[in-house]
Amino acid sequence: MENPLLSLTEETEKIEKTLKLHFQSDFSYINEITSHILSAGGKRVRPILTLLSANICGSNDRKLHELCIIPEYLHAASLLHDDVIDEGEIRRGKPSAYKIWGNKKTILAGDFLYARSIELATHFGNLKIATEIAKTVLLMSEGELIQLQYKNLGNITSEVYYDIIFRKTATLIIASCKIGAYSATDDSPKIKALENYGNNIGFAFQIIDDLIDYLPENYKTGKIKGKDIKEGKMTLPLILAMERSNTNEKARIQNMLAGNINEDNLHWIFNFINDKGINTEIRDKAFEYIEKACSALEIFPDSKEKTILTEISRFIGARNF
Amino acid sequence: MENPLLSLTEETEKIEKTLKLHFQSDFSYINEITSHILSAGGKRVRPILTLLSANICGSNDRKLHELCIIPEYLHAASLLHDDVIDEGEIRRGKPSAYKIWGNKKTILAGDFLYARSIELATHFGNLKIATEIAKTVLLMSEGELIQLQYKNLGNITSEVYYDIIFRKTATLIIASCKIGAYSATDDSPKIKALENYGNNIGFAFQIIDDLIDYLPENYKTGKIKGKDIKEGKMTLPLILAMERSNTNEKARIQNMLAGNINEDNLHWIFNFINDKGINTEIRDKAFEYIEKACSALEIFPDSKEKTILTEISRFIGARNF
Repeated sequence: MENPLLSLTEETEKIEKTLKLHFQSDFSYINEITSHILSAGGKRVRPILTLLSANICGSNDRKLHELCIIPEYLHAASLLHDDVIDEGEIRRGKPSAYKIWGNKKTILAGDFLYARSIELATHFGNLKIATEIAKTVLLMSEGELIQLQYKNLGNITSEVYYDIIFRKTATLIIASCKIGAYSATDDSPKIKALENYGNNIGFAFQIIDDLIDYLPENYKTGKIKGKDIKEGKMTLPLILAMERSNTNEKARIQNMLAGNINEDNLHWIFNFINDKGINTEIRDKAFEYIEKACSALEIFPDSKEKTILTEISRFIGARNF
Repeated sequence: MENPLLSLTEETEKIEKTLKLHFQSDFSYINEITSHILSAGGKRVRPILTLLSANICGSNDRKLHELCIIPEYLHAASLLHDDVIDEGEIRRGKPSAYKIWGNKKTILAGDFLYARSIELATHFGNLKIATEIAKTVLLMSEGELIQLQYKNLGNITSEVYYDIIFRKTATLIIASCKIGAYSATDDSPKIKALENYGNNIGFAFQIIDDLIDYLPENYKTGKIKGKDIKEGKMTLPLILAMERSNTNEKARIQNMLAGNINEDNLHWIFNFINDKGINTEIRDKAFEYIEKACSALEIFPDSKEKTILTEISRFIGARNF
């Protein structure tokens, strides 16, 4: 399936330009870190969602590209802090900011980008946009804290998992859509529709992202080597695996989460998840979210934006890597 | 000199209550950390400045106490991140959050409080308040980053020092005053006057705070043991000491900043700063700021608020510990 973002090359280029323009601080040393994380080649899904949400609501905002970069800055800020928390040394195939600059500078560069994104959100004379972004940062920080609380423990429930991914992932995708809508309209049903769309693709995105970490084909090609389980993070595949485990298997999983990982038990858990049909179950769950996301868009008349938003949601569900 | 904040006991109690009400997260575990830093008994200078600034501009905002706690949350958030950056194990005489919960949880609790303060700033239907707070967080994070860049180096100039303390300290005190003013008035001269007042007491506060770290009487009583120099921070007393040093003395100071500290050279630097008249020079400089702060208030007619704001500025200048 082709990435639908590719049909938006021109818009993506404008967003790239605006991204570079605004992360600048007066201090070259801050720019090095922020530029490192922002140039690492993300797919810019969040800015594109802002753009499409604004346009589907009939935006004529000349500062629209500036609005679009706000969620990308928030995302980058959260990645910087994530890498410090998880001691992540590789980010998108390159050494992480944490690895290069150490935890102190990385924490502060994250603070700087959080602040920059919130400050940008006040540029539009629209308190709803600023409020949405502030609320999002609050939820994201809670999500990270809850995740940390459960780190290395095998006792996380589906309910807690969905709460964490709502806060950590869905909330920023919702905000990406809502600020776009807010910039263009006061129409509550439209705003609500885009909120629903964002919420559903947010959940679909994260459960697929967490599944990708356990796909046997990624293990075989060496693309993925069980990053989440190595970091002691219990995500949906492991939660479902625990539910389907006998006492010995449960103990084996808990032992892995506590840090005892080797090639043997990694190989075992990948196969276990596949053999128990967990891959299929999660993929089905993601498609349910995607169907809900597409239904949410029904109130909008047909348009280029509606088509691409629909394609984006389907692309998220089909992702293998 | 008696602390003028003591005349505001009733107001301070209301602020304490509001502080406790709003830092709550749904998660008890987050509350433990935020409550630790917020209950450590700060003087609540910033909330009081917001309150007085609002009242001197004729505020009748029923949510005024909620507004007042915003700068205190920001301050607490910055202290949490500061302790991680500086590896500070003691804060206000108690073990720091960093010492108790480790760097990861402390970073995230800081993010949470930053986010909560910004989110609160959007509750007043006034974009100027939200913008001021967002700008302040941006400047504060830049200030921390610049300070970190110069850590352990003996080459910081007065210009850079004043730039850092503007960003790290003055900016939040200015914001404390300005959001109070914004909540009550659109009158530019009044807002500007309170901005000037905040700026000047901000500088006075920080240069005195940095001087206190080098006062021989504090060294003798064991209250202060050269925390800044031990952390490799070059503040105004050391900058002036470098200016008055011969080659050997310069090398000795630089050696201390690089981490080679013992009782002998600590004793030496405290005496050196005292003997060269640096204490007096900094105290005089602080009084200049305070005079400017008091002059800025001249546009307001006499009132209880004006009297207390004046007393606060004089109290800052006279502080020994």
